[in-house]
Amino acid sequence: MKINQRIKKMLSWYEGDSPGVKRNLASILMAGKLGGTGKMVILPVDQGWEHGGARSFAPNPAGYDPHYHYQLAIDAGLNAYAAPLGQLAQGADTFAGAIPTILKVNHSNSWSTSDDQAVTASVDDALQLGCSAIGLTMYPGSDKFNDMVEEARELTREAKSKGLAVVIWSYPRGGKLSKDGETAVDVVAYAAHLAAQLGANIIKVKPPTAHIEQADAKKVYDSCNIDVSTLTARIAHVKQNCFDGKRIVVFSGGAAKGTEAVLDEIRQLRDGGANGSIIGRNSFQRSREDALDLLKTIIRIYQDKA
Amino acid sequence: MKINQRIKKMLSWYEGDSPGVKRNLASILMAGKLGGTGKMVILPVDQGWEHGGARSFAPNPAGYDPHYHYQLAIDAGLNAYAAPLGQLAQGADTFAGAIPTILKVNHSNSWSTSDDQAVTASVDDALQLGCSAIGLTMYPGSDKFNDMVEEARELTREAKSKGLAVVIWSYPRGGKLSKDGETAVDVVAYAAHLAAQLGANIIKVKPPTAHIEQADAKKVYDSCNIDVSTLTARIAHVKQNCFDGKRIVVFSGGAAKGTEAVLDEIRQLRDGGANGSIIGRNSFQRSREDALDLLKTIIRIYQDKA
Amino acid sequence: MKINQRIKKMLSWYEGDSPGVKRNLASILMAGKLGGTGKMVILPVDQGWEHGGARSFAPNPAGYDPHYHYQLAIDAGLNAYAAPLGQLAQGADTFAGAIPTILKVNHSNSWSTSDDQAVTASVDDALQLGCSAIGLTMYPGSDKFNDMVEEARELTREAKSKGLAVVIWSYPRGGKLSKDGETAVDVVAYAAHLAAQLGANIIKVKPPTAHIEQADAKKVYDSCNIDVSTLTARIAHVKQNCFDGKRIVVFSGGAAKGTEAVLDEIRQLRDGGANGSIIGRNSFQRSREDALDLLKTIIRIYQDKA
Amino acid sequence: MKINQRIKKMLSWYEGDSPGVKRNLASILMAGKLGGTGKMVILPVDQGWEHGGARSFAPNPAGYDPHYHYQLAIDAGLNAYAAPLGQLAQGADTFAGAIPTILKVNHSNSWSTSDDQAVTASVDDALQLGCSAIGLTMYPGSDKFNDMVEEARELTREAKSKGLAVVIWSYPRGGKLSKDGETAVDVVAYAAHLAAQLGANIIKVKPPTAHIEQADAKKVYDSCNIDVSTLTARIAHVKQNCFDGKRIVVFSGGAAKGTEAVLDEIRQLRDGGANGSIIGRNSFQRSREDALDLLKTIIRIYQDKA
Amino acid sequence: MKINQRIKKMLSWYEGDSPGVKRNLASILMAGKLGGTGKMVILPVDQGWEHGGARSFAPNPAGYDPHYHYQLAIDAGLNAYAAPLGQLAQGADTFAGAIPTILKVNHSNSWSTSDDQAVTASVDDALQLGCSAIGLTMYPGSDKFNDMVEEARELTREAKSKGLAVVIWSYPRGGKLSKDGETAVDVVAYAAHLAAQLGANIIKVKPPTAHIEQADAKKVYDSCNIDVSTLTARIAHVKQNCFDGKRIVVFSGGAAKGTEAVLDEIRQLRDGGANGSIIGRNSFQRSREDALDLLKTIIRIYQDKA
Repeated sequence: MKINQRIKKMLSWYEGDSPGVKRNLASILMAGKLGGTGKMVILPVDQGWEHGGARSFAPNPAGYDPHYHYQLAIDAGLNAYAAPLGQLAQGADTFAGAIPTILKVNHSNSWSTSDDQAVTASVDDALQLGCSAIGLTMYPGSDKFNDMVEEARELTREAKSKGLAVVIWSYPRGGKLSKDGETAVDVVAYAAHLAAQLGANIIKVKPPTAHIEQADAKKVYDSCNIDVSTLTARIAHVKQNCFDGKRIVVFSGGAAKGTEAVLDEIRQLRDGGANGSIIGRNSFQRSREDALDLLKTIIRIYQDKA
Repeated sequence: MKINQRIKKMLSWYEGDSPGVKRNLASILMAGKLGGTGKMVILPVDQGWEHGGARSFAPNPAGYDPHYHYQLAIDAGLNAYAAPLGQLAQGADTFAGAIPTILKVNHSNSWSTSDDQAVTASVDDALQLGCSAIGLTMYPGSDKFNDMVEEARELTREAKSKGLAVVIWSYPRGGKLSKDGETAVDVVAYAAHLAAQLGANIIKVKPPTAHIEQADAKKVYDSCNIDVSTLTARIAHVKQNCFDGKRIVVFSGGAAKGTEAVLDEIRQLRDGGANGSIIGRNSFQRSREDALDLLKTIIRIYQDKA
Repeated sequence: MKINQRIKKMLSWYEGDSPGVKRNLASILMAGKLGGTGKMVILPVDQGWEHGGARSFAPNPAGYDPHYHYQLAIDAGLNAYAAPLGQLAQGADTFAGAIPTILKVNHSNSWSTSDDQAVTASVDDALQLGCSAIGLTMYPGSDKFNDMVEEARELTREAKSKGLAVVIWSYPRGGKLSKDGETAVDVVAYAAHLAAQLGANIIKVKPPTAHIEQADAKKVYDSCNIDVSTLTARIAHVKQNCFDGKRIVVFSGGAAKGTEAVLDEIRQLRDGGANGSIIGRNSFQRSREDALDLLKTIIRIYQDKA
Repeated sequence: MKINQRIKKMLSWYEGDSPGVKRNLASILMAGKLGGTGKMVILPVDQGWEHGGARSFAPNPAGYDPHYHYQLAIDAGLNAYAAPLGQLAQGADTFAGAIPTILKVNHSNSWSTSDDQAVTASVDDALQLGCSAIGLTMYPGSDKFNDMVEEARELTREAKSKGLAVVIWSYPRGGKLSKDGETAVDVVAYAAHLAAQLGANIIKVKPPTAHIEQADAKKVYDSCNIDVSTLTARIAHVKQNCFDGKRIVVFSGGAAKGTEAVLDEIRQLRDGGANGSIIGRNSFQRSREDALDLLKTIIRIYQDKA
Repeated sequence: MKINQRIKKMLSWYEGDSPGVKRNLASILMAGKLGGTGKMVILPVDQGWEHGGARSFAPNPAGYDPHYHYQLAIDAGLNAYAAPLGQLAQGADTFAGAIPTILKVNHSNSWSTSDDQAVTASVDDALQLGCSAIGLTMYPGSDKFNDMVEEARELTREAKSKGLAVVIWSYPRGGKLSKDGETAVDVVAYAAHLAAQLGANIIKVKPPTAHIEQADAKKVYDSCNIDVSTLTARIAHVKQNCFDGKRIVVFSGGAAKGTEAVLDEIRQLRDGGANGSIIGRNSFQRSREDALDLLKTIIRIYQDKA
């Protein structure tokens, strides 16, 4: 498959990055059924670290086997598969070259506080596992956010110096943020902006609500008449916050919910200009058959066919 | 454009610095419409880090695109453009060599307390992005000021050992300082002096008010009849505090305000001997046309023509 | 002076290089009277290392003083001045920022054999002296050429990682090469190509003769009807060998000779598409007045005015 | 000037130190009008860091210029000049070799608490600035004294390994110490002893009062009939506490006061065996003429002529 | 002794060097009876390494004791004493600070070939011994000259980064050089030029003969009418070769010879503009009394009194 003009254009936005980073970014952009469209669907399976195996895989026990997720992502025609070190390694040889992978290099766990993450893998691990990118999570708003920023910069710099792309999960949390504030549109847009400033090639945030958390921000949203009335408008606003749309931004599906609710939300993401979705629990906690069905429809949505 | 006697003299003040640092300092002093005058106007755009994209760019949405600011600074004939890593990198290739750049290497954010900064970029980043200088912020008065000092020294030493100039934003804040104290003339002059002691080539402070914050300082200001009655007198006092005027000191325009108020203040800065202005929100939050008009007039002021 | 479209285009040819390298390359391309034309005249003064002071400077003893050459290059409006460490350092502070400089980091001497060079300066020296580039010489054809290649790569990689541009003097010499072969068109074109392959931003070779040294090359030059009948044709051929003209190639003037001979040759270089000339002995071994006259005319030639 | 027997003897006390440290210590002992006497007068100008420029230099505005202090110390015939990094560097080239210098490598500021210091310069800075010694301050009694001790040891060890001498300003402060206790004779003598134990080549303390702060010490001072009734006796006691007089101990003049009071105190210091004085504000806050007069008399006192 | 205008001027020639290097260079220029004149006499005693103790010290057995040479240099009022590690260390504590010392860091020995030197001491040794400079020897013309150059650069860079001055003994030898060629004026002038290019602060060569060794050089000496007819003229030529006189050049006395011959030669060196002499065997192989007499007269010659 040839790199088309759309993908070339997108790669050109990453001016500061080496051809190595662009090649790996392109590998994700060109993979699967959405290859070449500038859209992507990624399968992330890091719930084991976060909540333990049972809470992650008991609803669909096939998922206890790390090979299951590789195969699911391949068979569904996804763009990439993201997972923690041990789980990714367990299938890395069998599936070498079969699908772009993203090594999640830090994680929280069920006993972590909102400002707590452990670095669980290295850039060299990612190279040796044949990954296209590393992924990392940060918590804007948390009391230790500045420490996380410095860690994120170090990991990002090392990954890029070795030609790997970087995906940042930017999840507002902790500190003075209210629970509603974690998904407030002003907060999510800011969180996405910070990931862009840190050098993320792909930014992952949650779909924002219409709530505005920060008083100083509220004034600006009002005075500038920023439209946050619909999810579609809010997604467009988040994209704008990422260098006027020059960064790839993908959205999570959030907590597991009904199929129609998921699809409906994704249509709005698409209409707002989202580059795609990261679909975790909503795919691997269903049966393989149901998951393949769901992912097929999601891909059709991003193909403007559904 | 040849280095003239005025610039040679200014460079000679930096006795301890290598020819590499002087070359980069000269690149800023010789750029733009004020090149060769010893005066400078710099465009800083780091509000995205500090307050998020919307609060920074919604009033003039063209500013969401990092290229916009490079082009604005070039078209206005400014001396340099300062920005955080991600934003600077997004245009670094397109605008390579077109205008001196300053990489801001640390930042606070909306959730930071007054003594909190993250290092977001490195000296090597600055070399690879083709910058003339690194920029860093410190908060004299904050409870963690001494930690900031040590970080500032490390960054300064590394930057200078590789031939880069150093710009220090010295913003009193936190600790026992009252809100009024942050811009008190004794405090601002002291903050500027500390930046000089740390090795800053260019010092950036806010225009001080006539308020005197520290009781012990008040006695001296009174007994020595230090004139702080006008902004012009206060600027002269700040310059004197920077090695008797042997350091370049530039002033911010502060919060966005009306055009005439901005210009009037800058005339007083100039009359007090300021080396120039750093104009952020007052330039990029207007329309491009208005910003170019404003900057044109500011430059004319520093050329003694307005 | 703003970077124009011609220079932007030229910079875009250096795809693999960082914005830092491009900024420094741009500093050379934008300096002096030829700034912005894509052409350049460089003053190299490394004959002291190669042949001693007397053979270099006795014809014009003002040249014993390192400051003389800085001033000559500046007054003549050249693009850059290249010299060895000691000589460059002796004026680096006085002339900081006044003209782009190139630190020659290796040298032969009068007792060196044809495969012998010493590394006489480091990349860090170049940063601290405020240079835009390092320069290095290699001898394609010599018995130790592969060692030189490895040294060249190491220096090139380090320089570029710190944002410096690289100029390679590629002088065929030694091994099985005949004396005539050193300037044979097939050999010079090959030597220029090798410099491009090593990552040189600017390539410096001698104007080639019509002689073809290598038997195997001769067959191709004949069968493909490569025109090497005129100097102009040969220069075009050398440029073509440098990534189809996508590298900057400059030519030496060779041993000191009469003014008209020099100018005539340079007109042919220009007509063949040369990016400029490196004029050493032909400039600094004349009186300052004569040198300024000569350089003025050479610049006019490259401006298509003479 | 040849090293005489008195100086040789003094150097011999520093058994554990390298010839490099002794050479640098000798450079201070042999400089100025007191050169060779074993006595010294040092000009320290670090009040800018501690209190800001205005409180330091407004009484004699010539002092805003860093060159002023070098020239004053030289013209007064002092043994050394001590200052923070930025200020020392601003004249280091102009005054290279003209007078021994001491780089103060840590500082408090007006907002620091009593247990708070920042390291503001490195041993390598001192080597590159051509200093004879580094100087550092510690606060015996403060809650963080043990941290300060470890920092002091690290800096001392590095400085000595590179041949630099070490001056320790030992100022009791903080913790359970009463305000009077900071200058109590038992506390000052103890503080001086600690500096000697840490490896200081020159120890700087304040002239002690007759107050005894520590109950346990009081018993011993009483039972052993230690004479602390006069300043002269107390100085002798402090010297004794510094390895029985085998360390150089100098005393500050404290806050600016009248000329006669200063001179009278210094006569008592001399009579008690002080090795000299560090005269900061009392010299640079007067007019240059007055300062030269005062320093002339002080030197005559240490020459036993006044 | 204050740094006078002559010395300030000389220090200003070393633009690329730090204040630390200048301070140490000044320590040599200000020491001894010639202090402040810009002239110097140095005692080098490295013949033990080169030829063994007996060939060096048997003529005056007092010289077997390392202390002897320190005392001789001090009593004669010389500017500096240069020696190998062991010998320098044996008196370094006793004579700490008494006279500037130069640590010779490489040496040949009686079994060395003409292109062979061992590095026998480090820059850190020099710092710990309290030296003002390191000294090193290189053999222009030897088959391994390029290796020597690289070693010299490394040592020079490290020494200067730590504030030490560098003295290079540049002795043409080996390779294709004839025995007469080693002191040929073209060769010596070239050797001095190379030392300047490598960054030497003080250059030491032998007084050249009127012989011209290199055919290509001969043409230039003839065509440019370079006067090499007298030793005085040749010295002036060598100085010119060292950045037009902007480097300190001192000359050896060569093999031991009669007093009048030595003095006569030194008068000619002085008249040619030599900065001084390095007098080894001619001083320490005489009795102490004779040596002091000789050195006294030599110093008077450089004072223009004899």
